[in-house]
Amino acid sequence: MVEQSSPQLDAIFHALGDATRRHMLRELAQGERTVGQLAEPFAMSLAAASKHIRTLESAGLIRREIRGRTHLCRLDPGPLASANAWLAFYERFWAQRLDALEHALRAEGPDPSKSSRKGDAS
Amino acid sequence: MVEQSSPQLDAIFHALGDATRRHMLRELAQGERTVGQLAEPFAMSLAAASKHIRTLESAGLIRREIRGRTHLCRLDPGPLASANAWLAFYERFWAQRLDALEHALRAEGPDPSKSSRKGDAS
Repeated sequence: MVEQSSPQLDAIFHALGDATRRHMLRELAQGERTVGQLAEPFAMSLAAASKHIRTLESAGLIRREIRGRTHLCRLDPGPLASANAWLAFYERFWAQRLDALEHALRAEGPDPSKSSRKGDAS
Repeated sequence: MVEQSSPQLDAIFHALGDATRRHMLRELAQGERTVGQLAEPFAMSLAAASKHIRTLESAGLIRREIRGRTHLCRLDPGPLASANAWLAFYERFWAQRLDALEHALRAEGPDPSKSSRKGDAS
């Protein structure tokens, strides 16, 4: 009753709850990056950057490929789609606010559904 | 360069990274709940439940209203819209996969855009 594919969603949302990791994902959205390249914009050691990268890997958000002595990271967008699907349930709530506003505005103006045209049912 | 309205997103995603808190939000999607009602499905003390509720409050995801001696909690969907907006940037990546599949399927079958009908430009 309580769970909703919890362990994976826990890991995904936890990984997203940090600006450094979100920035790394934004970087990877532009293409593959080495661990060094991902660490570069931040005042942090390679070890600290690696820890963030492992968190993203655990959540399935990035894949690491070893080419020779280089570790290349790639974005895996699949888990973001899961997070998006979870949030989609709540879309009705922020959408409802917009609907309420639209109804209020329509109640004040002429009803556009009662125009003189016919046969526009498509 | 690095930040993207970070503190609020940190708090929102952090709050969502826990199954208990996600379940509380799902409960609140059905209507107002007291702290006791939110704690009920879990084997946890009111103090432990209150800690989760404070985390959700800090993220702006719920509002607490005091009516007499009762603390009533209400869902505030606004911050979920922010999280959704952050994720929307990545939608192209999981959408691209579907597009690639669609193109592959179209390349194998007849092209539906070259049908014999005319005047269907609407």
